[in-house]
Amino acid sequence: MTTTSGATPVWDAETLVDRYAEVRSHTETLAAPLSPEDQTVQSMPDVSPTKWHRAHVTWFFETFVLADHEQGFAPFQDTYWFLFNSYYEAVGPRFSRPQRGVISRPGAHDVGVYRGNVDERMRDLIGSLDGGTLEKVTPTIELGFHHEQQHQELLLMDIKHVLSLNPLQPAYVDRPARAAGDPDPGPLGWVDVEGGLVEIGHDGDGFSFDNELPRHQVWLEPYRLADRLVTNGDWLEFMADGGYRRHELWLSDGWARINAEDWRAPFYWTEVDGVWFEHTLHGTWPVDPSLPVTHVSHYEADAFASWAGKRLPTEAEWEHAVRSDGQGDDVTGNLANTETFHPTAASATGAGDARIRQAYGDCWEWTSSSYLPYPGFHPAAGAIGEYNGKFMSNQMVLRGGCALTPPGHARASYRNFFPPGARWAMSGVRLADGGAPTTGASA
Amino acid sequence: MTTTSGATPVWDAETLVDRYAEVRSHTETLAAPLSPEDQTVQSMPDVSPTKWHRAHVTWFFETFVLADHEQGFAPFQDTYWFLFNSYYEAVGPRFSRPQRGVISRPGAHDVGVYRGNVDERMRDLIGSLDGGTLEKVTPTIELGFHHEQQHQELLLMDIKHVLSLNPLQPAYVDRPARAAGDPDPGPLGWVDVEGGLVEIGHDGDGFSFDNELPRHQVWLEPYRLADRLVTNGDWLEFMADGGYRRHELWLSDGWARINAEDWRAPFYWTEVDGVWFEHTLHGTWPVDPSLPVTHVSHYEADAFASWAGKRLPTEAEWEHAVRSDGQGDDVTGNLANTETFHPTAASATGAGDARIRQAYGDCWEWTSSSYLPYPGFHPAAGAIGEYNGKFMSNQMVLRGGCALTPPGHARASYRNFFPPGARWAMSGVRLADGGAPTTGASA
Amino acid sequence: MTTTSGATPVWDAETLVDRYAEVRSHTETLAAPLSPEDQTVQSMPDVSPTKWHRAHVTWFFETFVLADHEQGFAPFQDTYWFLFNSYYEAVGPRFSRPQRGVISRPGAHDVGVYRGNVDERMRDLIGSLDGGTLEKVTPTIELGFHHEQQHQELLLMDIKHVLSLNPLQPAYVDRPARAAGDPDPGPLGWVDVEGGLVEIGHDGDGFSFDNELPRHQVWLEPYRLADRLVTNGDWLEFMADGGYRRHELWLSDGWARINAEDWRAPFYWTEVDGVWFEHTLHGTWPVDPSLPVTHVSHYEADAFASWAGKRLPTEAEWEHAVRSDGQGDDVTGNLANTETFHPTAASATGAGDARIRQAYGDCWEWTSSSYLPYPGFHPAAGAIGEYNGKFMSNQMVLRGGCALTPPGHARASYRNFFPPGARWAMSGVRLADGGAPTTGASA
Amino acid sequence: MTTTSGATPVWDAETLVDRYAEVRSHTETLAAPLSPEDQTVQSMPDVSPTKWHRAHVTWFFETFVLADHEQGFAPFQDTYWFLFNSYYEAVGPRFSRPQRGVISRPGAHDVGVYRGNVDERMRDLIGSLDGGTLEKVTPTIELGFHHEQQHQELLLMDIKHVLSLNPLQPAYVDRPARAAGDPDPGPLGWVDVEGGLVEIGHDGDGFSFDNELPRHQVWLEPYRLADRLVTNGDWLEFMADGGYRRHELWLSDGWARINAEDWRAPFYWTEVDGVWFEHTLHGTWPVDPSLPVTHVSHYEADAFASWAGKRLPTEAEWEHAVRSDGQGDDVTGNLANTETFHPTAASATGAGDARIRQAYGDCWEWTSSSYLPYPGFHPAAGAIGEYNGKFMSNQMVLRGGCALTPPGHARASYRNFFPPGARWAMSGVRLADGGAPTTGASA
Repeated sequence: MTTTSGATPVWDAETLVDRYAEVRSHTETLAAPLSPEDQTVQSMPDVSPTKWHRAHVTWFFETFVLADHEQGFAPFQDTYWFLFNSYYEAVGPRFSRPQRGVISRPGAHDVGVYRGNVDERMRDLIGSLDGGTLEKVTPTIELGFHHEQQHQELLLMDIKHVLSLNPLQPAYVDRPARAAGDPDPGPLGWVDVEGGLVEIGHDGDGFSFDNELPRHQVWLEPYRLADRLVTNGDWLEFMADGGYRRHELWLSDGWARINAEDWRAPFYWTEVDGVWFEHTLHGTWPVDPSLPVTHVSHYEADAFASWAGKRLPTEAEWEHAVRSDGQGDDVTGNLANTETFHPTAASATGAGDARIRQAYGDCWEWTSSSYLPYPGFHPAAGAIGEYNGKFMSNQMVLRGGCALTPPGHARASYRNFFPPGARWAMSGVRLADGGAPTTGASA
Repeated sequence: MTTTSGATPVWDAETLVDRYAEVRSHTETLAAPLSPEDQTVQSMPDVSPTKWHRAHVTWFFETFVLADHEQGFAPFQDTYWFLFNSYYEAVGPRFSRPQRGVISRPGAHDVGVYRGNVDERMRDLIGSLDGGTLEKVTPTIELGFHHEQQHQELLLMDIKHVLSLNPLQPAYVDRPARAAGDPDPGPLGWVDVEGGLVEIGHDGDGFSFDNELPRHQVWLEPYRLADRLVTNGDWLEFMADGGYRRHELWLSDGWARINAEDWRAPFYWTEVDGVWFEHTLHGTWPVDPSLPVTHVSHYEADAFASWAGKRLPTEAEWEHAVRSDGQGDDVTGNLANTETFHPTAASATGAGDARIRQAYGDCWEWTSSSYLPYPGFHPAAGAIGEYNGKFMSNQMVLRGGCALTPPGHARASYRNFFPPGARWAMSGVRLADGGAPTTGASA
Repeated sequence: MTTTSGATPVWDAETLVDRYAEVRSHTETLAAPLSPEDQTVQSMPDVSPTKWHRAHVTWFFETFVLADHEQGFAPFQDTYWFLFNSYYEAVGPRFSRPQRGVISRPGAHDVGVYRGNVDERMRDLIGSLDGGTLEKVTPTIELGFHHEQQHQELLLMDIKHVLSLNPLQPAYVDRPARAAGDPDPGPLGWVDVEGGLVEIGHDGDGFSFDNELPRHQVWLEPYRLADRLVTNGDWLEFMADGGYRRHELWLSDGWARINAEDWRAPFYWTEVDGVWFEHTLHGTWPVDPSLPVTHVSHYEADAFASWAGKRLPTEAEWEHAVRSDGQGDDVTGNLANTETFHPTAASATGAGDARIRQAYGDCWEWTSSSYLPYPGFHPAAGAIGEYNGKFMSNQMVLRGGCALTPPGHARASYRNFFPPGARWAMSGVRLADGGAPTTGASA
Repeated sequence: MTTTSGATPVWDAETLVDRYAEVRSHTETLAAPLSPEDQTVQSMPDVSPTKWHRAHVTWFFETFVLADHEQGFAPFQDTYWFLFNSYYEAVGPRFSRPQRGVISRPGAHDVGVYRGNVDERMRDLIGSLDGGTLEKVTPTIELGFHHEQQHQELLLMDIKHVLSLNPLQPAYVDRPARAAGDPDPGPLGWVDVEGGLVEIGHDGDGFSFDNELPRHQVWLEPYRLADRLVTNGDWLEFMADGGYRRHELWLSDGWARINAEDWRAPFYWTEVDGVWFEHTLHGTWPVDPSLPVTHVSHYEADAFASWAGKRLPTEAEWEHAVRSDGQGDDVTGNLANTETFHPTAASATGAGDARIRQAYGDCWEWTSSSYLPYPGFHPAAGAIGEYNGKFMSNQMVLRGGCALTPPGHARASYRNFFPPGARWAMSGVRLADGGAPTTGASA
């Protein structure tokens, strides 16, 4: 986490309290449709229970703000200190991650009480700080907002997985009424980009995470990017052409994985009597060929690109292309604020007069770049330094945001990351061609 | 399941409905202290969530009674048919057992609705049957009562495990006020039994499960049985004497298991600063040396007996001794109806003028007998035949009942069974000496 | 191990040395067809490499005889002391069993040098002992003979498994020329046995292991035993009738196992273009319907018996029947000395005028008895006490011997044992009917 | 595999046959000290038996050269076709890799016969080809040479692991006599490099693998490289300073791994009574502080660099620095031809007047670069295309070669790769500072 100094917005206490209330209450709004039982389940080690997310983001404020600044600080509950630490080694021992689902207590209501307590103390604290201290504390509070928003996305990703395992095929929320059908996005077009010695990384306006820095130069050969995401219709062609059975399309690890786990379609797809259905947060629906394909792993994205005779973009190519297309500062797309909670079909044009459609939102886009530190990267000091840097191993970068992503988490320099076999994030595919295949190689 | 014909009690419809209501409501009473979150958790594959138990015993009546006898029967919910089948292959496919904890819906309340629906239909059915049909259906309904009572014990065993993993150390219920301390049970005495060609197995009075039949002859050499259970105090001596570190005391499988899983004390014991504590349904308490040791595996029971220079009794020895001691028909002890939910210290004498103390209740007693069919055993026809017979492999017999056992499940011929490494049942140890060491050998 | 005192044969030093040479050289004869590479492989944790067997039996004499009686004893090699201990906790730490196959050195030749060294020292020792000491040491030496013979059988079992995994389908030895075809054993007949209060266990003549003692009384209801083993032809009928797909025939553990590991036929069978082939020590041959089925687990044996409407005998039933049939003292059959190394078809009659055909040899016969101690059983003192007793858990008894068994290891009271899922022993099936289904229940 | 056209050396048949004989006989020379038993063992799934290596490299010539060009080609043995395919999906099904150690036959001698047969056929083929065909086939034969040389290194790496598990502490070969002690390499110095827009990748002179191409531009910030490898002495300081216990030094995956597997020192180190010993191909020796540390994982290398306040170089930094130092064309160092088979201490200066000491040989040097395709990379057509590209996932690049590497496999553009947790390769650490931390970021 970093806010480049020149760019830090000036927060007064009132604004900060309002923003705090807004972020915090949105989490509760997202959890509201979920029963205490729904909020308790951990369906796989990667997934955390809803009530755990609600408590953990609260713990973050308690640990990194209150503990340092509240007069006479004491934890709300000693055991919560242990239960709701996620991965901060510096804060002390933690409850075993794969066991989060065996903890029935504190229950959903008790977590609400915990949240209320911390909220009150945070409001009191912010109100009581003098200007200098407030300025010093604000970056951590702001990081807490961004942290909570990341967990808002995780909460939705995770409950989607929980509900997917239930043979009752439950929905998180009923699908809102929609128009007569998603429009056909039309054929995929290409956007040419010149390349050269370009800059990538956060440019110093507003908030960014530490992993988006430092801004630095990379060399790019000329290349082109697809103007929309790969659709379910495209994917059905890949499947029909033996995509999951042709070893020559796959990375060795990917081939081993799809065979070990018998992957024959995207994560949430099921075939019933020859028809493919997709589990969504609105229940189970027939696969719509117009929509972007989602919940595919990096391995599948890479194999699809090979099948198509194309490749995935590097993260530098993605960032430079989007900026060149005039979408650097203006972030528009199907993000969580649309409340679709699912990718939608590409419209005829991109935002404004942009040529790259669906740059932000709908699906996170797998790149061919390993998640590695930028030149000169240094993690922040202390426990907060564990936020990003220590995960720079065995993961691939995704760019652009998805339909579950809070709008503040979509920007040209934002780096999301997952292991190449992960499928429960709302990930999709944009093709690239020409130029440099990978950041690792050419960026 | 069998009720020897001559002994079947005559149930009229009204009595049956009353008994049904009594059994069914007791399950709900036991679940009442548990929140929806508590009722959702599956803490290990062996454990089922509380709300699953509540639904499964309901499914049993729906499947084995209503489906065969209700006019125009249709399942309450097709998917429940699949979700709440435990292990009846003949009824069809089942939801994966280790995944019971990922099913947040139906929730605890929904299960209550399901229970209400089946209860009403059961009442209607019983009221509508003519005498002949009623007589024919009654044994299955009665089996349903016993089945539900077995799950009442499992529900308590399982929630004890769920709560044990929570660092908040929650209690199922607060411990009732008790007297100034458990009395010292005094030194262990011995009860001599003559042996010879004796009979064991259910003797035809009242209900029994099929595995208690047929009654048959076995030859027993003279032997003696301890007059009380092994206590925590005894066990602490065993531990202090290196009991868990001396290979020569252990069966090879037991030695491998305790080292692989680092067992150094009974299942629910934890050492804090040199003091042993025990997780109970009343929370975590210091180990009381007067109480019977419980939650030990067969391996540990066997090693303890070796250490003591004694052995475990065979199931035939246990049954014959208890009958010989006048405790064949009169079943008295610390069973679930005492609501202690934990073993208590042996009193100075047994029930009435019995010499064998704690014969029933407190702890299930490991025997040295493998769980195998009695001579001439035949499982019942149809799905109900899967109740017992198919589990006669890799398990050991326990006798006598525990503080979680409904009174109707304690009798001289009752055969409980668990794998030799199981520890989450409320199991304990009674020593034997002389005569035949095992059923397999001498019974 | 025990030799009932009255019955101990008087060994003079010369006889003992001759017998030692005979037993020891037979091991080398069995290993002779195997290359250094063959002797090195451990194909699964249960299997030991040939050269490990050759070294371990040598270690047994070094540890239990030389270490106690040789003047100025020192181990041949300190590390061998560690490498070639099998499971004797009392002798000290051991090399990890599943890693025996990673030890390339000592090689096959080095093991021969080790054997030669110990043989010379043993000869010297025996020659040097005075009569009293010799008498005291003889039982341990004799146990060493029996121990080595057990490993002669294991060596063959194990190399059979090693070679089975090789796609070159190698043979241990070429099949000896044989007559025009195995004779049809004819239909299965039944031998009735009266039962009553009978005695089982070793009767004190000659050598026995400690697990065959004490001789003791058991009660048997009348029963009958099949007069021959189940054949491959019988088994093909079971398979054709859906034997491996019908859950109602199987113990729950067995059903889980066959589905988890996809067992659809005996262990060493493979189907090629609709024809079943069987891996043998002579290479891979079409399944011969006249031969006894072999390499089936207890689970499969039990399911077959259920399918046939019969059951497996208890070990007491087997022993009493064989003695009643006049085969108590006269042991004749297809044992290892025939050098067939494979079961042969039942001839028209049993040994002499016996009615029970194939009582000894061909295949070990699964019983329905768990491997448990006889009444009054006490393991021998010291490390030798680990020979049998500590394995009395989670195993089933087999009786009678097989085509790999040295003749001295077939007798009426001999108790072999394996876990119910084991299939690499040369195990088969004899049916029983009537009377008591299991030792645990009725014996 | 590729040989840039302009640079292909002209091979005549005689030269090719001579070179073939030289490469092939060197494999046999390396295997010569190993017994048939040594050659049979597979000590972990990553390791292959020596005789498998000897057969697989032979299969390579048979499959990719003889099968396409020999008149009337037939495989030497159909089953070998299946047994000795490593990972070429396009060639057909393969024997399971983790099971290579259960195949005792063909034995070491039989593999020699197979080698002889293929050698003779290869000589005949080369002699019989006309000039045009010879030119067409030569690149594949040359690839076969390089392939066999890679396996020469693997053979040594693998047998080192096999012998390491043997408590007899065997040596592959006795250590050659050496001088009075390895010289102290002196303090670590730094070599500054300017950076800018530079080129990396194979420059078209002589053989390279396909993964070294295309040569392409990358942007490098100024940086500096350590002038020698990290030593055992340096590593002992890291350990003494709690290097393996301080979470803040480690990548998250690394921290999880070292704790799960209890790594507390380099792979082959063992502590005996407070002294560290190291398993080498010459047996087990006390750790020498002057020698380079080796057999450490990427995780450990990265943690060491963090501890030292430095970082690992990117692969582009490594390659550019070595070329800038005049070591682009002149490859000199402790490679396999020295027959030390172990890293040696850095001498006072590098090769010639080079400033970077130990650039080639001693230890492979972990970089911070993920193994990803270069811009414009395309794998070769057909089965040969599986050689490199499909492994570009979840691996890190190593540069420079080690004491087991054939000299032809050390060059400025050579890219070796292993997963970040791998330790059985002879891998070591060179530090970097300043400029770009990773290829992924800046290169």
